[in-house]
Amino acid sequence: MNLRSGRLNKKMTTGAAEYTSSLDSDRYLFDSDVKCNFAHVLMLKNENIIDEDIADKILEALTKLREEGFESLDFNRSVEDIHMAVENYVTDMVGSNVAGFMHTAKSRNDQVATDIRLTLREKIIEVQLGILKFIEKLVQKAEEHKDIVTVGYTHLQHAQPITIAHSFMAYAQSLKRDYERLSDTYKRVNQNPLGSAAMTTTSFPINRELTTKLLGFNTYLENSMDGVSARDFISETVFDLSTLTTTLSKICEELVLWSTYEFDVIEMSDEFSSTSSIMPQKKNPDVAEVARAKSAVINGELVTIMTILKAIPYTYNRDLQEITPHLWNSVEIAYETLKIVSEMTLSISVNKNRCLELAGANFATVTDLADVMVRERKIPFRTAHKIVGRIVNLSIEMDLDIGDIDSRFVDGIVNDLGFDKLELPTDLIQKSLDPIENVKMRQVPGGPSPEMVQLACNNMKNFLKEEFDKKE
Amino acid sequence: MNLRSGRLNKKMTTGAAEYTSSLDSDRYLFDSDVKCNFAHVLMLKNENIIDEDIADKILEALTKLREEGFESLDFNRSVEDIHMAVENYVTDMVGSNVAGFMHTAKSRNDQVATDIRLTLREKIIEVQLGILKFIEKLVQKAEEHKDIVTVGYTHLQHAQPITIAHSFMAYAQSLKRDYERLSDTYKRVNQNPLGSAAMTTTSFPINRELTTKLLGFNTYLENSMDGVSARDFISETVFDLSTLTTTLSKICEELVLWSTYEFDVIEMSDEFSSTSSIMPQKKNPDVAEVARAKSAVINGELVTIMTILKAIPYTYNRDLQEITPHLWNSVEIAYETLKIVSEMTLSISVNKNRCLELAGANFATVTDLADVMVRERKIPFRTAHKIVGRIVNLSIEMDLDIGDIDSRFVDGIVNDLGFDKLELPTDLIQKSLDPIENVKMRQVPGGPSPEMVQLACNNMKNFLKEEFDKKE
Amino acid sequence: MNLRSGRLNKKMTTGAAEYTSSLDSDRYLFDSDVKCNFAHVLMLKNENIIDEDIADKILEALTKLREEGFESLDFNRSVEDIHMAVENYVTDMVGSNVAGFMHTAKSRNDQVATDIRLTLREKIIEVQLGILKFIEKLVQKAEEHKDIVTVGYTHLQHAQPITIAHSFMAYAQSLKRDYERLSDTYKRVNQNPLGSAAMTTTSFPINRELTTKLLGFNTYLENSMDGVSARDFISETVFDLSTLTTTLSKICEELVLWSTYEFDVIEMSDEFSSTSSIMPQKKNPDVAEVARAKSAVINGELVTIMTILKAIPYTYNRDLQEITPHLWNSVEIAYETLKIVSEMTLSISVNKNRCLELAGANFATVTDLADVMVRERKIPFRTAHKIVGRIVNLSIEMDLDIGDIDSRFVDGIVNDLGFDKLELPTDLIQKSLDPIENVKMRQVPGGPSPEMVQLACNNMKNFLKEEFDKKE
Amino acid sequence: MNLRSGRLNKKMTTGAAEYTSSLDSDRYLFDSDVKCNFAHVLMLKNENIIDEDIADKILEALTKLREEGFESLDFNRSVEDIHMAVENYVTDMVGSNVAGFMHTAKSRNDQVATDIRLTLREKIIEVQLGILKFIEKLVQKAEEHKDIVTVGYTHLQHAQPITIAHSFMAYAQSLKRDYERLSDTYKRVNQNPLGSAAMTTTSFPINRELTTKLLGFNTYLENSMDGVSARDFISETVFDLSTLTTTLSKICEELVLWSTYEFDVIEMSDEFSSTSSIMPQKKNPDVAEVARAKSAVINGELVTIMTILKAIPYTYNRDLQEITPHLWNSVEIAYETLKIVSEMTLSISVNKNRCLELAGANFATVTDLADVMVRERKIPFRTAHKIVGRIVNLSIEMDLDIGDIDSRFVDGIVNDLGFDKLELPTDLIQKSLDPIENVKMRQVPGGPSPEMVQLACNNMKNFLKEEFDKKE
Repeated sequence: MNLRSGRLNKKMTTGAAEYTSSLDSDRYLFDSDVKCNFAHVLMLKNENIIDEDIADKILEALTKLREEGFESLDFNRSVEDIHMAVENYVTDMVGSNVAGFMHTAKSRNDQVATDIRLTLREKIIEVQLGILKFIEKLVQKAEEHKDIVTVGYTHLQHAQPITIAHSFMAYAQSLKRDYERLSDTYKRVNQNPLGSAAMTTTSFPINRELTTKLLGFNTYLENSMDGVSARDFISETVFDLSTLTTTLSKICEELVLWSTYEFDVIEMSDEFSSTSSIMPQKKNPDVAEVARAKSAVINGELVTIMTILKAIPYTYNRDLQEITPHLWNSVEIAYETLKIVSEMTLSISVNKNRCLELAGANFATVTDLADVMVRERKIPFRTAHKIVGRIVNLSIEMDLDIGDIDSRFVDGIVNDLGFDKLELPTDLIQKSLDPIENVKMRQVPGGPSPEMVQLACNNMKNFLKEEFDKKE
Repeated sequence: MNLRSGRLNKKMTTGAAEYTSSLDSDRYLFDSDVKCNFAHVLMLKNENIIDEDIADKILEALTKLREEGFESLDFNRSVEDIHMAVENYVTDMVGSNVAGFMHTAKSRNDQVATDIRLTLREKIIEVQLGILKFIEKLVQKAEEHKDIVTVGYTHLQHAQPITIAHSFMAYAQSLKRDYERLSDTYKRVNQNPLGSAAMTTTSFPINRELTTKLLGFNTYLENSMDGVSARDFISETVFDLSTLTTTLSKICEELVLWSTYEFDVIEMSDEFSSTSSIMPQKKNPDVAEVARAKSAVINGELVTIMTILKAIPYTYNRDLQEITPHLWNSVEIAYETLKIVSEMTLSISVNKNRCLELAGANFATVTDLADVMVRERKIPFRTAHKIVGRIVNLSIEMDLDIGDIDSRFVDGIVNDLGFDKLELPTDLIQKSLDPIENVKMRQVPGGPSPEMVQLACNNMKNFLKEEFDKKE
Repeated sequence: MNLRSGRLNKKMTTGAAEYTSSLDSDRYLFDSDVKCNFAHVLMLKNENIIDEDIADKILEALTKLREEGFESLDFNRSVEDIHMAVENYVTDMVGSNVAGFMHTAKSRNDQVATDIRLTLREKIIEVQLGILKFIEKLVQKAEEHKDIVTVGYTHLQHAQPITIAHSFMAYAQSLKRDYERLSDTYKRVNQNPLGSAAMTTTSFPINRELTTKLLGFNTYLENSMDGVSARDFISETVFDLSTLTTTLSKICEELVLWSTYEFDVIEMSDEFSSTSSIMPQKKNPDVAEVARAKSAVINGELVTIMTILKAIPYTYNRDLQEITPHLWNSVEIAYETLKIVSEMTLSISVNKNRCLELAGANFATVTDLADVMVRERKIPFRTAHKIVGRIVNLSIEMDLDIGDIDSRFVDGIVNDLGFDKLELPTDLIQKSLDPIENVKMRQVPGGPSPEMVQLACNNMKNFLKEEFDKKE
Repeated sequence: MNLRSGRLNKKMTTGAAEYTSSLDSDRYLFDSDVKCNFAHVLMLKNENIIDEDIADKILEALTKLREEGFESLDFNRSVEDIHMAVENYVTDMVGSNVAGFMHTAKSRNDQVATDIRLTLREKIIEVQLGILKFIEKLVQKAEEHKDIVTVGYTHLQHAQPITIAHSFMAYAQSLKRDYERLSDTYKRVNQNPLGSAAMTTTSFPINRELTTKLLGFNTYLENSMDGVSARDFISETVFDLSTLTTTLSKICEELVLWSTYEFDVIEMSDEFSSTSSIMPQKKNPDVAEVARAKSAVINGELVTIMTILKAIPYTYNRDLQEITPHLWNSVEIAYETLKIVSEMTLSISVNKNRCLELAGANFATVTDLADVMVRERKIPFRTAHKIVGRIVNLSIEMDLDIGDIDSRFVDGIVNDLGFDKLELPTDLIQKSLDPIENVKMRQVPGGPSPEMVQLACNNMKNFLKEEFDKKE
């Protein structure tokens, strides 16, 4: 079948044919293309647009093709794309007098748009399941690390004590949003462009509701010009994936830091590390580094897609073809990165002693000392903040630890600043300054205390259950 | 109030203070910051965390500030940001012994995240209303142009006849998705980070449900580390806006083309055109060109935001501050572009005669002649396609118009190709080739025929009614 | 050879090994890696760092490998990268007791940086030669089209008459800058990082001048930390390529427009067009469309690379590995696009009659009528501009052509506007308004007149000669 | 002066006029616009295109305007841009009968292109001087830190000992390339488009060599269509700036890390840090964080510019106007970031003891022990690498320090691995493992030893001297 029997007299040059070929990424569309043809022919038969026996022969051939799979197609050079290859298969099977009816009231324009959406639906669900499984394991890991207190950072400086579990649950929350975003996008992917034909539907009395139902779409894309040219579902999906991999990249960024000699908060598993060809003492977090970089690739893919989409008028332009491989590449990178980052994250071991050491090292608990002053002595927070700032400064100057701060030391400073003495008991001061006690006092939902983390874990497990149920 | 009374001994250099200042874009946050403080203090009072009379004085001061507005704030150099300016105002009003309690159990980290979300909620609704109004007018314009037949393009080459109305409705469908995407994003914007404090909540028994309710949020962001650092709602919004402006840019692209001397399909209103300083005969579509370019700006803003987000570990890092101005800039550009493109599009006048001329000029109807062969003579579409291809080629060679194609001419070609004569009546052939008749035969939902466009208009009007009702 | 015999106890998981593997793109480095090893070992021998006979055996093995080529390498799963594969080959050849010396005073960090630069040097020259050849043909095409007058556009509206040749020479000038930019970048690519070793050079007394000379580098990258981590030469190259493909994309944009039914300025060769599966009359400019889209891909690749580079501290991080495949992809796309756009552009045929028709259609010459008024009657340009504006308006209203504008008509308007009559002879008016005469009057260097275009062609041919000579 | 006196009957709406206005960023062009007009009129006079006395009056008015400055212009609403404002000023001064001649043989299209290039030339030199000054101070800082040994990182893991000075010189080398890249770009900025007029030059006998000379351009852009539309010099400049700020961002990334509690390698100056509103113990590296983020902004600006450029055909399209503000924004951000990062970097203090501690902590010197084995005992590097890997593993297991590794320990392992004993003297082993001795042995140019760093400093000082001389 040579489409070029239209009005053109000369064939494309080999170079031009190769340059414009979509075959490399068309393998993603095989299943969907067969499915799409099947539904279309079934509809044509149902609406008496083509004869029943012709339809049945085509359907039979398509069924056989689905069983035999992609490998049974013949991709010699003159085949432009997957649609031609499928049509050729059917033609070989049932003859051109029959197969020629398959393309009635359908164009490659609406067919390719339908195929991409069919395939993407499945890919999105795969990624979503991967996210749910990662969250599930993170919750489990959090429950195991509820009591491990470490320091949390803002500006990469010690801020306040947290639990390692709390940190894992922060990852889980980001991932949950990444999941939900894909669910929203799915609604816009799962719409049927079939029946738009080249761009204006057709004069055959096709039944768009029927193909929509047969192909499991939610609805059809009403306007035919929009149907063949809309690719915003692609940029939207790739944006979602870039947000997902940004979450993963942040996790990697953190694990790379935590596994340095200096931080020493975690140890990466050997299975996700490498050594050096010249420096035998090295243990490098290669997987995390590569994952960080792969995340940038999806940002680049998004720019490619958005740049292509920006510059073209309605309706179908061949530029659109170039978008699809970048979609599949993004989906694959995101899925693989999700998988490997998930495994790597779950395989780290936490250095409990170092965690506690850091939590107590650098005055990370003094906000709570200020809070105690507010609560017990009813002074304004801003005054307490000022006093505590001076306490920290003086302690650093005098080389004191948090253990050295007592009632007298506090009131000495209070006095210097011209306020009334607070006379806080030293044990209250010490309790507020102790990182373990400090974390326990965080009894607000969403806080790092073991109870609140458990609450968060339970909430997340409910969410997971619901979503896993939906996917089944 | 100088925050730098913490542990630092030297003030920032003026250069550093200016470089890191967020004041330029903080004006967007004024209303929200007052609102946020108000809800927080009301909650502190309600939970007996601070004394009733202290709370009331602060609330009174905040109420006064809201009335007096942004202009009443004092922005001298030592004020770092809007939060400090608001606190200063309250302090001036009620004294530091009272105002100092306002910051209890709250940090700038959760406050700024809350403020941004509060402001963004309103901005999203503004943009959404703008979209609905544009669609409303497009539907009206479509209804007025239901009978104007022109040619539709694929690859910028004549494809098949359409109605101008159908083209307008294609715009409307894209815009509808842009609208729905923002509705989905809104869910993720409308979540409350307040109570996360610096990053670990607080040891005060705050009530997060209450502030969530007071501020009209759907829910609160549970994990406090996530609460202060999550900015994916920003990149998601900006992505949505870039998709919206890409739609607008495509419309502009098309109008620029259509208003060329060569296409001559529309005339731009003088009010959205300019002339030249050196070429007095020019009428340039400047607004459309600028809008096309502004759309690219939002792509750039998205890259900025995604690049910043990609590279930072948990939790708050000052890098995040730099994201917000790019959000506001994107919102403003998108809103203004929506407004002006909407006005410009609605002001075009369509050159009816030229439209019809183009529709009939270049064999754009021959697909239907092939369809007629399939329908009337039960030959495979592929065979019909081949015959029609030859008809077009020969007609061009012989300099024939579509009006010249009759039964005999068709069967001559059929014969040459070795098929059985079709003996299609000339009037059937001519009907299928006439662009106006051709469009009328598109009776499939989503097609360009006047009836189907009216159906699409009605569907869209129902959608608009529902959404306008929701926004009220 | 298993590098993992360093300090790690467990092997990477298969998934992690595949995820972090660079093998897919390492084939680009084969020749360079052999070359680099060869130069390094020659230097080690020359400086007596390793024994002469050991060195000779290694050199012999490398020579053999170069002859046998990439296919002779053994890529089973446990080989991490090309460097290991090459080392394995040498080891198989001469035994580990000899081959083990090859890696003395060298690391994969400096080696891979050297390899990439060696390969990229050649790729840049290939692309540059492609540009020169395209320019050469454009100049030839320009010389053939010196007398074909058409209209030039600003804002896609008719502006002033040009020659088709002038337009081709505008392409040539852009391409010339794209060429020169690559020459500048080449200087920064052609610098030798070898000798930086892992990141601190080595305690062996290596001779960096010697390897620099052997490998044909201009100079060596002095600082070893910079040497192993600098990848700005990659982003710079990809930027240059994106600018090149932007030029190509603009050409395609223009050819797509010009080949529409409406513009009809050129006809694309059938060999670079396609037809439609459903619309047999179509002739679509697919190659131009795909080229336009591929150009966007390089923008995306640039973003990927810049995003990766932005986020990492000194020195080598594995993230850097992910950059290289995007370099090669960019180089390949740019090269192929250059080639096909070049062929396609050169194969268009220009519709001379339509060109002239457009040039005279829409008052594109009136600027010169204004200039005549200034020159002949010494009135200010702004006054002339005003008069001519009115002439155009009135002509459009009265449905007049440029041929209808005579002395009396002009002075009628002049009078109405309250100026003194100009009494310009009608033949002078008509000469200024005739597009062919109009173009001829553009006798300023860089202008569209046949003489000036010939001058530009001659200048460009001199440039081409010089550059071709350099490349030989 | 209302340009709209051309062929348009209605004025732009206020909204459209504001939307398309370039006034906000036109202030950058004031000086250049006056200069450009001046040179153009001087040329017109010189070539006798306009009368001498008319020319002199205009030149006088322009001279006065230059003295009075930007503030003397009248920007009421009806002024479209800076060019009109300047023309209005001249008209007010000398009357329209004289001023009207200023625009002879010139268009806003070539004028704005010329103005942008004139202003950008100066901006580039400003940035370049900033880079040279930063390098100068880095060299000085390096010379002061030549003897401070610390550990260098690859993969953020300890790699090999370096000197702090070596690290500073790595920054300097990157900056040097950023400088050179701008020098190359400058050549393409410094070309004169004036004389291209609207797009086809003019029929007046203008002298392009003369304006080129008067305005200090290297050459003129020959092709007039290219002259008015080429903006690749803008994207190229912004790319250069993004590469510069990427360098700065990497420095910031490193300083943020080094100033953490865990690394503790440097202390940031208080003047470039901030504290927290809730955590008084914090000292946050805000300037570095904001600088990191601002660097991402330039990446975004580059995408904006490249996306706009990609989508438009020849020649001038109004889209181009939107590019310029993003150029100025990039220039300003780059300049400010360069300035502040420079100050911040130079103000850090290095914690010498911690540096040495890290250098000796984690077997970072063992590569040299392997080298010693190769050198002293002529065993292959790969064998030595294997032995040393085992030494590290065993030392970690047995909790040994580098100080504990002696001849016997080494030979025990050598024996276990089945090799011949090496009998290396313990003092040789210890010397190779001592970080200070280790660094001293790096006597290869580009290495971290004090001598080699001094050599690098001297080379750089020569470079600086040459470049400073050129700029004077």
